[in-house]
Amino acid sequence: MPKRVVIIGAVALGPKVACRLRRLDPDVEITVIDRDDMISYGGCGIPYYVGGDVNEIEDLCSTASHAIRDPEFFRTGKGIAMLTRVEALAIDRKGKRLKIRHLEDGKEEHLSYDKLVIATGSAPVRPPFPGADLPRVKIVSNLHDAQAVKDLLKQGKVGRAVIVGAGAIGIELAEAMTDLWGVETTVIELADQVLPAALGKTIGRIAKRQMEDHGVKVMLSERVIRIGEAPDTGSLLVETLSETLSCDLVVLSTGIRPNSMIASAAGLAVGRSGGILVDSRLRTSDPDIYASGDCIELRHLISGENQIMPLGSLANRQGRIIADNISGGSSLFTGTVGAFCLKVFDLGISKAGLTFRQARAAGFDPVFAVVSQPDHAHFYPSANLIFMTLIADRRSRKILGIEAAGKNGAAVKARVDAVAVMLRHGLDVEDVCTLETGYAPPFSSAMDVINNAGNVLDNILAGRNRPIGAAEFLEKLAAGEMQVLDVREAPTAKPFVDKYKDRWLNIPLLELRARLAELPRQTPLGLLCDTGPRSYEAQVILDAGGITDTLNLQGGYAMILATGSPLL
Amino acid sequence: MPKRVVIIGAVALGPKVACRLRRLDPDVEITVIDRDDMISYGGCGIPYYVGGDVNEIEDLCSTASHAIRDPEFFRTGKGIAMLTRVEALAIDRKGKRLKIRHLEDGKEEHLSYDKLVIATGSAPVRPPFPGADLPRVKIVSNLHDAQAVKDLLKQGKVGRAVIVGAGAIGIELAEAMTDLWGVETTVIELADQVLPAALGKTIGRIAKRQMEDHGVKVMLSERVIRIGEAPDTGSLLVETLSETLSCDLVVLSTGIRPNSMIASAAGLAVGRSGGILVDSRLRTSDPDIYASGDCIELRHLISGENQIMPLGSLANRQGRIIADNISGGSSLFTGTVGAFCLKVFDLGISKAGLTFRQARAAGFDPVFAVVSQPDHAHFYPSANLIFMTLIADRRSRKILGIEAAGKNGAAVKARVDAVAVMLRHGLDVEDVCTLETGYAPPFSSAMDVINNAGNVLDNILAGRNRPIGAAEFLEKLAAGEMQVLDVREAPTAKPFVDKYKDRWLNIPLLELRARLAELPRQTPLGLLCDTGPRSYEAQVILDAGGITDTLNLQGGYAMILATGSPLL
Repeated sequence: MPKRVVIIGAVALGPKVACRLRRLDPDVEITVIDRDDMISYGGCGIPYYVGGDVNEIEDLCSTASHAIRDPEFFRTGKGIAMLTRVEALAIDRKGKRLKIRHLEDGKEEHLSYDKLVIATGSAPVRPPFPGADLPRVKIVSNLHDAQAVKDLLKQGKVGRAVIVGAGAIGIELAEAMTDLWGVETTVIELADQVLPAALGKTIGRIAKRQMEDHGVKVMLSERVIRIGEAPDTGSLLVETLSETLSCDLVVLSTGIRPNSMIASAAGLAVGRSGGILVDSRLRTSDPDIYASGDCIELRHLISGENQIMPLGSLANRQGRIIADNISGGSSLFTGTVGAFCLKVFDLGISKAGLTFRQARAAGFDPVFAVVSQPDHAHFYPSANLIFMTLIADRRSRKILGIEAAGKNGAAVKARVDAVAVMLRHGLDVEDVCTLETGYAPPFSSAMDVINNAGNVLDNILAGRNRPIGAAEFLEKLAAGEMQVLDVREAPTAKPFVDKYKDRWLNIPLLELRARLAELPRQTPLGLLCDTGPRSYEAQVILDAGGITDTLNLQGGYAMILATGSPLL
Repeated sequence: MPKRVVIIGAVALGPKVACRLRRLDPDVEITVIDRDDMISYGGCGIPYYVGGDVNEIEDLCSTASHAIRDPEFFRTGKGIAMLTRVEALAIDRKGKRLKIRHLEDGKEEHLSYDKLVIATGSAPVRPPFPGADLPRVKIVSNLHDAQAVKDLLKQGKVGRAVIVGAGAIGIELAEAMTDLWGVETTVIELADQVLPAALGKTIGRIAKRQMEDHGVKVMLSERVIRIGEAPDTGSLLVETLSETLSCDLVVLSTGIRPNSMIASAAGLAVGRSGGILVDSRLRTSDPDIYASGDCIELRHLISGENQIMPLGSLANRQGRIIADNISGGSSLFTGTVGAFCLKVFDLGISKAGLTFRQARAAGFDPVFAVVSQPDHAHFYPSANLIFMTLIADRRSRKILGIEAAGKNGAAVKARVDAVAVMLRHGLDVEDVCTLETGYAPPFSSAMDVINNAGNVLDNILAGRNRPIGAAEFLEKLAAGEMQVLDVREAPTAKPFVDKYKDRWLNIPLLELRARLAELPRQTPLGLLCDTGPRSYEAQVILDAGGITDTLNLQGGYAMILATGSPLL
């Protein structure tokens, strides 16, 4: 058993290792150091502190029973030495000691260790354009930043804000500023969608639409050239490729890089992304040094690639594993499937695995299904639609990814988390079709949305369901390349028929078998219903009747509404 | 490919087989028969129709797009012959024909089949006590019964009701009667807990407490002897072993038996429970005859035993599989893990796998953990506690079951459904500890309740955590066999110390390391905090200090409150 364990970093992983280790071993001497004086906090709560859901900064640093996790808490409560405002300078691997500097007085010393844990996290990337370092251009990556931004908001100094980067934190901050503070907020994203690393296009469009519905302006495929200050008003001027935005605050949220310098300087192996390389026991290339959290590379279990995955959930699980291993046990962390969730105003979004693009980049031949379905039995009151994308490999039929969005975030998460387990164990489309989940009308459907996503994907793979996405559907309709066959009831379809004339046909599904003769045989048909099942059934009926040049709108008209382009 | 398929039964499974089959094969002749004239309805919605969440009986017989699924719907819309008020009399397996009787005119005829599907469902068991057949003693197993009971309620004829049987339907009906109709309702259950087939004692107690909190009287370990009528008032008199209850309506909800007579009469194999035996392709012992739904036995994947499992969710999945197999494909149904969920007033309850008792009966050496934890990050507003039991086998560490309850039913279901996937694939305690699920403060904790259930079970298996359940804790406290060491903050603990004097000690956890000398070394200590983590940590600290005769209250004082016995 080690006698002295030193841990660099005291935000999430470090304290977790320390506390678990103390419970496993009452005798080991544990020292945690951190450059900062604010430690052991829920970093994922920062946007909620800015937005006011979390009132005081202390709430993020407190236990569930309201004890503030300060150095004294760790010392007397846990028997852990917590040194704040202390910087780790260098690891002397031969001598097994860590050189540190006390930031208050500049004093340097060495801490000897039997086992060292690197939990240095990540640092935000400050983009290279001019003006990124102006005083009112902020990066919100720790509690000090959060406090500074919240102070500006509280003082009423922010009427308009620009957020650069539509990743999770950018979106959460946009919500925080808009919802509580009424700030006119614009989000600028380089990619052609929001959450480009997390979501595919369909669910990405739903997230964007949700932001716009709540007053956030979203600019995609847009690059910031420079940020300046208006000489007259003092406003910040954010100059992009296409326009210049005037505002009072800019928040940069353009990604992170792992803090692995101290590791690479000590000769520890570091991967392509700059993350420290670890084995399944979370040991670096030096078996006496562990590392985890945002500063390491993880194996993505679907793509097989190593990547950084800065998620607080993973850091906590890893912390427990490191403590187990240090204290003589054997616990493994085999990798991640990238399970993720996010609140975007009224919407919950969840994903696991790869997006379509990521799957293709990883060498798969991905096929996807898109479905819309209520989150519980349609006959039980107040159901909300869940929109879902399920992705599988064409050849192996293995599930590669799932994304979903809906107003009942917990219900969305329920489906995605179940599939996250499947992803880890290499299951296939049939496993989703028959996935066994609890059923009661207030909570689910007898054939739940997740099963139907599997069923639709099975039908697509079998060639029975030939789908078209909402965006392509709208393009073809606009280009006159397709007539719509709307199989909803006549009163629902009528306004569309009135508006689109002979480009919009209506035969309710229940009449379709008897009225096949009315249909044109030259023009391709785009089949449309409310959410998708009826237009699929129409496609099968038309196939049997010899009308095969048809495409079935995935997720139905609900998907067109959710992704942002109503047709009336 | 078969030319003629006949399906007996038109509630859930039968129509599902028919519709999927039609989509797979436009040419096959499909005939569905049913004794009833009400067909293709959501049977699980019946209690919600009685309770008023579902307004009209037609809502249960309609598609999501409001088409009523009557015989005409199936004929013109689906190309399926739907014969109602037709009884199946006998299967002529040699001749491959089904003898039927038209109930309206008594006419009998034969339907020839290439493939036959038995979807006859189950029938309620009418208990044998006298009076079980009185007019106001109802069984609510189909829409006619539901309508009759709702009519009585609407007419204001029911002031007091007794429900016999605290299974899912009994509980849902109790809620229906109490919540909307204000009926004074008593539920009588033979077993020593509610939902004895679904839940273990802890979550069962939470469900019972929830019912009581909403005004339902729950009588456990109680047997009905007879039901009579008061000669003077005409009230029903329900006589039990211990008392006689007067009421206006009795609903019997004491279980079901599979409708397998026609199968056994035809020489098809039937199991111990009376359910038809099928293979993984859902074929009976005659390969041209399929059966599924409530009338078959399923393999329970954890116990390995065959049993009936009357769940609408399974019936729908099975229907799709039968259609696949009939139309020349190969789809398998390998068994069930018994995933289940239920709304009990404000509470959502979910389970999967075996209860502790069931696990022991199946030959395992089960160990369980009980945890209480908020459903999302404690610093984010309006978190609700989730109470959870996780059960594993001591030797193999394989997960055997999970049960949970909480106010956010979708969040409860999310955790249990993820574990349901794990159960199917034989995963173990470590897999739950590291289970990767999406994390965002509004939806989960960084170390989620499900991970912590795994962690606690891991600590129990390692002997680090020596637990005691809430009920045993209260017993020992009352018997003076134990002193309580309350490690909560002094103001929280004070009223308990005041009331229980020297039987209730208080040392806040953060002071415990420094104050070990104050503790008695003779009496056993019951360690208590809010939800469990601090009392576990206290146990570890006491162990290190040589005080080892301690038991840690699982789930903390929150569990005592939820299971029904506040100590103040």
